[in-house]
Amino acid sequence: MSTSHREIRQPNDHYQYTFGPYAEPVARVKPGETVVVYTIDAFGAKLTREDQSVSSVLGPYLNPQTGPIYVESAEPGDTLVVKIENIEPTRDWAVSCLVPFFGGLTSTRWTPTLQPALEERVWLYRRTASGGFAWKDRWEIPWAPFFGTMGTAPHLEAISTLAPGDHGGNMDVPDVTIGNTLYFPVHHPGALFFTGDAHAGQGQGELCGVALEIDARGTFTFDVIKGRAIAWPRIESATEIMIVGSARPMEDAARIAYAELIAWMVADYGFDRLDAYQLLSQAGGLYVGNMVDTNYSLVAKCPKRYLGDSPSHG
Amino acid sequence: MSTSHREIRQPNDHYQYTFGPYAEPVARVKPGETVVVYTIDAFGAKLTREDQSVSSVLGPYLNPQTGPIYVESAEPGDTLVVKIENIEPTRDWAVSCLVPFFGGLTSTRWTPTLQPALEERVWLYRRTASGGFAWKDRWEIPWAPFFGTMGTAPHLEAISTLAPGDHGGNMDVPDVTIGNTLYFPVHHPGALFFTGDAHAGQGQGELCGVALEIDARGTFTFDVIKGRAIAWPRIESATEIMIVGSARPMEDAARIAYAELIAWMVADYGFDRLDAYQLLSQAGGLYVGNMVDTNYSLVAKCPKRYLGDSPSHG
Amino acid sequence: MSTSHREIRQPNDHYQYTFGPYAEPVARVKPGETVVVYTIDAFGAKLTREDQSVSSVLGPYLNPQTGPIYVESAEPGDTLVVKIENIEPTRDWAVSCLVPFFGGLTSTRWTPTLQPALEERVWLYRRTASGGFAWKDRWEIPWAPFFGTMGTAPHLEAISTLAPGDHGGNMDVPDVTIGNTLYFPVHHPGALFFTGDAHAGQGQGELCGVALEIDARGTFTFDVIKGRAIAWPRIESATEIMIVGSARPMEDAARIAYAELIAWMVADYGFDRLDAYQLLSQAGGLYVGNMVDTNYSLVAKCPKRYLGDSPSHG
Amino acid sequence: MSTSHREIRQPNDHYQYTFGPYAEPVARVKPGETVVVYTIDAFGAKLTREDQSVSSVLGPYLNPQTGPIYVESAEPGDTLVVKIENIEPTRDWAVSCLVPFFGGLTSTRWTPTLQPALEERVWLYRRTASGGFAWKDRWEIPWAPFFGTMGTAPHLEAISTLAPGDHGGNMDVPDVTIGNTLYFPVHHPGALFFTGDAHAGQGQGELCGVALEIDARGTFTFDVIKGRAIAWPRIESATEIMIVGSARPMEDAARIAYAELIAWMVADYGFDRLDAYQLLSQAGGLYVGNMVDTNYSLVAKCPKRYLGDSPSHG
Repeated sequence: MSTSHREIRQPNDHYQYTFGPYAEPVARVKPGETVVVYTIDAFGAKLTREDQSVSSVLGPYLNPQTGPIYVESAEPGDTLVVKIENIEPTRDWAVSCLVPFFGGLTSTRWTPTLQPALEERVWLYRRTASGGFAWKDRWEIPWAPFFGTMGTAPHLEAISTLAPGDHGGNMDVPDVTIGNTLYFPVHHPGALFFTGDAHAGQGQGELCGVALEIDARGTFTFDVIKGRAIAWPRIESATEIMIVGSARPMEDAARIAYAELIAWMVADYGFDRLDAYQLLSQAGGLYVGNMVDTNYSLVAKCPKRYLGDSPSHG
Repeated sequence: MSTSHREIRQPNDHYQYTFGPYAEPVARVKPGETVVVYTIDAFGAKLTREDQSVSSVLGPYLNPQTGPIYVESAEPGDTLVVKIENIEPTRDWAVSCLVPFFGGLTSTRWTPTLQPALEERVWLYRRTASGGFAWKDRWEIPWAPFFGTMGTAPHLEAISTLAPGDHGGNMDVPDVTIGNTLYFPVHHPGALFFTGDAHAGQGQGELCGVALEIDARGTFTFDVIKGRAIAWPRIESATEIMIVGSARPMEDAARIAYAELIAWMVADYGFDRLDAYQLLSQAGGLYVGNMVDTNYSLVAKCPKRYLGDSPSHG
Repeated sequence: MSTSHREIRQPNDHYQYTFGPYAEPVARVKPGETVVVYTIDAFGAKLTREDQSVSSVLGPYLNPQTGPIYVESAEPGDTLVVKIENIEPTRDWAVSCLVPFFGGLTSTRWTPTLQPALEERVWLYRRTASGGFAWKDRWEIPWAPFFGTMGTAPHLEAISTLAPGDHGGNMDVPDVTIGNTLYFPVHHPGALFFTGDAHAGQGQGELCGVALEIDARGTFTFDVIKGRAIAWPRIESATEIMIVGSARPMEDAARIAYAELIAWMVADYGFDRLDAYQLLSQAGGLYVGNMVDTNYSLVAKCPKRYLGDSPSHG
Repeated sequence: MSTSHREIRQPNDHYQYTFGPYAEPVARVKPGETVVVYTIDAFGAKLTREDQSVSSVLGPYLNPQTGPIYVESAEPGDTLVVKIENIEPTRDWAVSCLVPFFGGLTSTRWTPTLQPALEERVWLYRRTASGGFAWKDRWEIPWAPFFGTMGTAPHLEAISTLAPGDHGGNMDVPDVTIGNTLYFPVHHPGALFFTGDAHAGQGQGELCGVALEIDARGTFTFDVIKGRAIAWPRIESATEIMIVGSARPMEDAARIAYAELIAWMVADYGFDRLDAYQLLSQAGGLYVGNMVDTNYSLVAKCPKRYLGDSPSHG
């Protein structure tokens, strides 16, 4: 499906480890253009066997990004639109593992204790005939791919690719998937888009901190909404509008996601603010994307059937 | 459907406002017995019109409970089993509202600021022919009923019916619904079961703090698992096993829910602990039940198709 | 010093493990009366040697309380006043220890992980000639005694003596000490006062969860402020006024403490609300009492020299 | 006092708004050298009168920094040592204010609600003969100066000067003051040191988010500890050693601060790890530096009298 589109690969495997304005663009795309972007897995494809020692193999930086991609015509104050046309694995295996002092059920660098680390362990999954990924003969996870990391360059900051925030980043949210459209704030000419950390699948919360990590290629169509600024990443599917809020503690991520969703409903769908608050109280969805990263990411959503006829961002 | 079963009503409308061991049982049921329990809405059915002043109408206590119900043979260290056979509304309207300094997008008693309260407002919903609940001609919420509050008496404590915890309580979790089975810890002879706060529907997070509040009757079949203690409320549906974790901050509720789910998978389904951790990382579900109560409640879940043949708690 | 006052001992060593309205008073005191109250240590005095196994020795309940003490004339809506005249140890040793899965630098029941518990360990301190408590020849902690637990019965709830809250409870705040005056809300006739968990000293945060635990006797003068309700425990020293806020996450305890301190400055000292906010921004104190209990307790304080002439609660 | 030392001013008033490795050094200093560094206040000295509209005056960036200063011989893996010899105001007034949706007792960008902002207000303080700063005839805050912001460049990130972290940054901790020595991690040749945001005084917590903001000059002596890496900023006074932990929620900042303090006691003072845990439980200090910034900063401290003879970092 993606073979007819221009392909973007990170030159010389010189991947990026921050979302920021300080690196030169690796490609330029036009609004409306569809391109194929190749990404490498969160570990730089260095973890390939179950008998490897995780901490010996991994370097200091994780989540290498392809980018920045310069989207022509995008200027500060605009919104970048990224339609995910397709996601394909470029290898027939996926890997997950336990990284010392990283994950949802261990003490971490940010929630330290005096306890020892959990043991390191690697799970290697093989792609099956049905397209899912199986660990031994124990279980098979259906193919449900998405990009763990995606976003634009912040104002002045260069933010680690391990962190999610209002620029997007390492959100680890399964709705960043095929058929959905992402919206990101633009702070620099060209927007400076990055993506990486493709997952063949992931549970809500990304409990151990590592999903089914794959090398992949994504097919994206880029566009720009001129003169329209947004504060947090937005996702639109065929049936829902969504906000990804990222913060700590987790309740702040929830507050951000729902507050921004109300702002969207007021601005684009004509809702009274308190009526939107009421409607989401009865019809909103709120799930945990990740409970393991530097910030936690929660997704608040509203079914489109409640929103009337107005097209979003139209 | 429920007419042939014994009916339990709270005597003299003397509802309970704590989960605790200090009140006399209002009824005794046998293991295996199915009964119908009548509950009154979270506001004691005092909020009936959109022109009412919420703060004038509401008294100091909310979430009146029917109970305690004494389940024969239940002893400390056992697990109480409650199958929800049915939930029916006993009136044709539901109510939601904004209570000053209560809700997910306002400062509260527990997260105070110096800002003024949001305005009070009432939304009255009418039951439709399809069984849903509609606010004016603006929107209709499908019938998706559940009990916001359900649980057993803690050891020594008497806990407000506004608080969820390891005893259950005010979890506000939509999976406490028809067809599902709840499991609660037993700390006293008879278990001392309470329920109330029925909702015709509710979004994830219960954003404004008030769902579609109804008077209702629930049809429950009680049972007891002897000699088996659990630490947190469990839910079993036809397709999933779930834990409800309640705590602050929200990430602690998430940790509790997933850690206890792993414990369940190890004890009843033979999982290695780290393999369960891995499986939930790829296949687990994690949504927010409430982001408004004294503790936040999150639901962690695992599809049964990953669990093999072993019956739970069998 | 305290020998001339009436002495209150818990009858039959039947200590209380909740703050609540469900137990009979063990003594009645008059406003203005000074009494001596005997308390037992947090472990019921069962931990006496460094070679004991902590988890084998401790029962299911900790922090036994002396009480409830009925203070005559106190009615709901009043404020209970407790002046701490003296605190004396009734033995020449103190004990601290590591309790499995309890403390500030371990995973806990409320912040669970999959890691093993820290080892159990006991530190036994001997009283020195100077009145401090020394561990071996390694270090000596100066005598700086206070009651870890103190408060009144809540409305309807019976709250574990491990939890601090708006009723006081297990605050673990070193300012509950000799010479200071405590103020608590009154929800029941007689106020129903409890205290226990005396400490010979404690660092801010009570890091491992266990201070220098002692049996003790406290000399208290009780009084009642009629018709004046307060929302959270207050402390007054010769030089400062203070609020103890208890909540999770810790920032909510900080918000509660400072917001209530502003309310106090407005009500009793004539401050404009935003001016009080400003003054505390430049002159307020905020330390962590405990970072280990069911709720965290923070103390916000304002030097009296900024408050003008008005007596507090006068 | 500082007139004999080399003076460093930010060239062309081109202040920095991130801590990062992407700007050219403005000066180079030698280990052992003492220099005077001029800083501008958090608002770029634009807020000068009580009748100004805060939101109209302030631009998008706050906390302008002087730097980066290149410290010769510092290499990645070393520790930068900064002795604060003196802090002097360079004007006779200080300013504080309320910034919309910023502060400890308001909803914020990170803890949003639907409530309106608090009113904007400015408090202008005049320096008094005694050296303190007085607001009208209402109150005077004693001169207790410190730098709100100080630190080194992170690995790859450029971090907003509003955020504190393991690089230091906007800690807002009163112990960054005259006579104390700061230690920071070094991730780049020359360490790349920044400072700014001088305060004439500040309460613990920096409640409204704005201290007594001043232009100032600091006299610093720089040094480098070769081959010694630290994870978080450290402070040493004549009587105490301290760690500044910065994170959200606040309990994580507390955990970080105390865990790193234990690591320090083990590495430099020969403590057994659990004995250090015990000692800090009885003798540690833990106060809130800020409860308003992107991360909260808490200071954990240990009196040196408990530490024996070993010099720190010796």
